[in-house]
Amino acid sequence: MRLATIETNGRTRAARLEPAGQAVPLPFDDLGALLAAPDWRTHAAAAGPLLNATEFQVTTLVPRPGKIICLGLNYRSHIDEMGRDRPKYPTLFAKFSESLIGPSDDIVLPRVSTEIDWEAELAIVIGSACRHAAEADALDAVAGYTVLNDITVRDWQHRTREFLAGKTFEATTPVGPVLVTPDELPVNALGLTIECKVDGVTMQKASTADLLFEPAAIVSYVSTILTLRPGDIIATGTPGGVGAGRTPKVFLTDGQTVETSIEGIGSISNRCRLEPAE
Amino acid sequence: MRLATIETNGRTRAARLEPAGQAVPLPFDDLGALLAAPDWRTHAAAAGPLLNATEFQVTTLVPRPGKIICLGLNYRSHIDEMGRDRPKYPTLFAKFSESLIGPSDDIVLPRVSTEIDWEAELAIVIGSACRHAAEADALDAVAGYTVLNDITVRDWQHRTREFLAGKTFEATTPVGPVLVTPDELPVNALGLTIECKVDGVTMQKASTADLLFEPAAIVSYVSTILTLRPGDIIATGTPGGVGAGRTPKVFLTDGQTVETSIEGIGSISNRCRLEPAE
Repeated sequence: MRLATIETNGRTRAARLEPAGQAVPLPFDDLGALLAAPDWRTHAAAAGPLLNATEFQVTTLVPRPGKIICLGLNYRSHIDEMGRDRPKYPTLFAKFSESLIGPSDDIVLPRVSTEIDWEAELAIVIGSACRHAAEADALDAVAGYTVLNDITVRDWQHRTREFLAGKTFEATTPVGPVLVTPDELPVNALGLTIECKVDGVTMQKASTADLLFEPAAIVSYVSTILTLRPGDIIATGTPGGVGAGRTPKVFLTDGQTVETSIEGIGSISNRCRLEPAE
Repeated sequence: MRLATIETNGRTRAARLEPAGQAVPLPFDDLGALLAAPDWRTHAAAAGPLLNATEFQVTTLVPRPGKIICLGLNYRSHIDEMGRDRPKYPTLFAKFSESLIGPSDDIVLPRVSTEIDWEAELAIVIGSACRHAAEADALDAVAGYTVLNDITVRDWQHRTREFLAGKTFEATTPVGPVLVTPDELPVNALGLTIECKVDGVTMQKASTADLLFEPAAIVSYVSTILTLRPGDIIATGTPGGVGAGRTPKVFLTDGQTVETSIEGIGSISNRCRLEPAE
């Protein structure tokens, strides 16, 4: 199944997307509310009236997840370009929901930075509460996978030892367009082409097979720390090709378009817009 | 005013605490719901029936804040004991709400660590939405102050470059007992004695006047990054005296009691309990 949050008639709804570009709206305010229902797979599969493509717009996949956990340094190619050693443990940091935007919303470039970078990522969306999950069981807690761009304010990321400040600027993290359930993808969503283009030029292109820590291992590891809950998002890290890894470095500017796609899931396209003056 | 979330008759309620140890329950499920009301100060001051101390128990102050942002390295004494330079910018990291517990709940010591440490902190609770606030205006967004212990799993904190994994273990972060509104405290809550005792022995004792970045500066800085919202918690960092800063290092063990207090706000007391075997 392909699930999304849509806007239709001035409100948001959870929806199932159909192959012909139509949507079946579901009786939940957004995908997060759907996933919080214990029997969400039954609700998600329910028959219902079809909306045509002109009658709805896909919006932020899970607008207010309980938590967003991100991995750094999880593709061999990105670890190499950042000049780091291969890690023994996943590097975890956070984002907050204020950073999230929809699959076609503008990325707001904060005025306080001129070093804003792209990071195409495969993201896991949690479908059931999960604590102390063994790696063999961890995928049971996964509702599906989506595309996320962990747009990063590099100068703020490196102001201190901690990444958070550069990772959670308001309206910088596009996610979507859809959640694809695991049955439609390879186990652990491995072997999918992940790509980021800036104004049509390919900047990142890799396979999710290059992930050091795979989704089951990540979910198991995080569940050792705390309870994962339905709607939580885990971004699994970015491959090589970020702007800060280039010589000379390249950063995003007002008016550019960032397209982020993963084979078998879909594509999001976001224009960069300089934050208005106050 | 002194505000809290209480449990009474098997449910939680926001409440105003009265000097004689009584409480006035308010028509909101918890303090977070009260603060989300636009005119919360009026609601909080409303007259109502009094509960006696035997009729209620104070519980987690804001059980599900939208975000918890923490500062590292913000007391001169703690910076020195950790061997770091004085920072130019606040070091920010996150916690998630699964880590929060109430003022008399047990701290769960995770079985995967033997290096669990205390960090007494002054915490800011946000009372109104706030973005791009100048330092001169930032305190307008503050609902009040409370006590928090940023219990830290040191070995997991240092597994990677990022603190998050060691900072957000389930049921490790006591907060409370009350929110004290700014009118009852010095400006920026400065000059208050902050103290942490383990089994009655004073481990940390400092003045909040030793804060490098003061609450107004912190709120202003964070609001440059994203919108702060009612109920959000900002923990302002810990003074010297943590277990990892001692020679030899000292960590918490099963059965110990951690008492964390700030002059003019109150005290929380939490027993350490080893996580049960699975």
